[in-house]
Amino acid sequence: MNFCSHCGSHDLKLRVPEGDTYPRISCGNCQTIHYQNPKVVTGCLPVWEDKVLLCRRAIEPGRGRWNVPSGYLENGESVAEGARREVREEAAAEVTIDYLITLYDIERINQVYLQFVGQLVDGVFGIGPESLECKLFTQAEIPWEEIAFTSSAFTIRNYFRDRERGTTTLYQGSYPDRGLINP
Amino acid sequence: MNFCSHCGSHDLKLRVPEGDTYPRISCGNCQTIHYQNPKVVTGCLPVWEDKVLLCRRAIEPGRGRWNVPSGYLENGESVAEGARREVREEAAAEVTIDYLITLYDIERINQVYLQFVGQLVDGVFGIGPESLECKLFTQAEIPWEEIAFTSSAFTIRNYFRDRERGTTTLYQGSYPDRGLINP
Repeated sequence: MNFCSHCGSHDLKLRVPEGDTYPRISCGNCQTIHYQNPKVVTGCLPVWEDKVLLCRRAIEPGRGRWNVPSGYLENGESVAEGARREVREEAAAEVTIDYLITLYDIERINQVYLQFVGQLVDGVFGIGPESLECKLFTQAEIPWEEIAFTSSAFTIRNYFRDRERGTTTLYQGSYPDRGLINP
Repeated sequence: MNFCSHCGSHDLKLRVPEGDTYPRISCGNCQTIHYQNPKVVTGCLPVWEDKVLLCRRAIEPGRGRWNVPSGYLENGESVAEGARREVREEAAAEVTIDYLITLYDIERINQVYLQFVGQLVDGVFGIGPESLECKLFTQAEIPWEEIAFTSSAFTIRNYFRDRERGTTTLYQGSYPDRGLINP
């Protein structure tokens, strides 16, 4: 950020606003405070019979690697709506949401992952413009060495754990792995 | 947004970038695309024996009303860390996180609420600068008519439901109440 998006001034400084405890980018001209906050990445692992649907990414980061359909939550949509939209965009498929399986923090890049498990409607899918390929995998077929992101590996691994145990758990994780939510 | 925060130009237009499906604020001068996304509100309901800790807000919105300690997630922190920080700021108290109880969407103001249940350490609390008062309430004492936000009422109600049933459930809700996560 080089200019104030409100008044156009170049007079931006990092300072702690009155009553606040964090330094914020603040405009010396119009006094606007420019807050910056983490983004939500929403997604859904589509399930069909004993298989899960993954997408091979056509874009960076992680081009050529497999991923759980996911992307930034948009203004005006719910987290579950965003997850269904991502499946539509990346796999040309519809899902019905079953449960939230993953809360995964990546603080160093200011991202919060929220991923659901859902049912692939009628087992039908295509290939979205951001994907090179979409494919159903059994647990044994999962290409673990070619998963794009740690968040996706976390969700896939825990989904199969849930299925084995007959549970629907919310798993909490982070990158790097801290193991505990109370540090 | 009146000016491009990258180059200072006034030439901002809403347009759909190539390969995108949503209109974004885009700079006609330097081509920067200014994405805008929802914010995470993180919080925790502190539990002590048969009571929960609420804070009476000293600031708008909802000044004078009771709330589950909550606020915007900051860059560089996990959702659970943010929840503990909010309890520290609003109730001068420490909590250990038990479980995520609430995923609550308010699409019209681009907010996603994530609220935990936690244990109030040693039953100790004070009054943070954003609070007029902090107080432990039994279920019968909850001031339902004076709760600041629907998200807080949702979390408090469901916590007592969980406690009655001996469960630790993730409840998903929204304002206005849509009842279902698959519309």
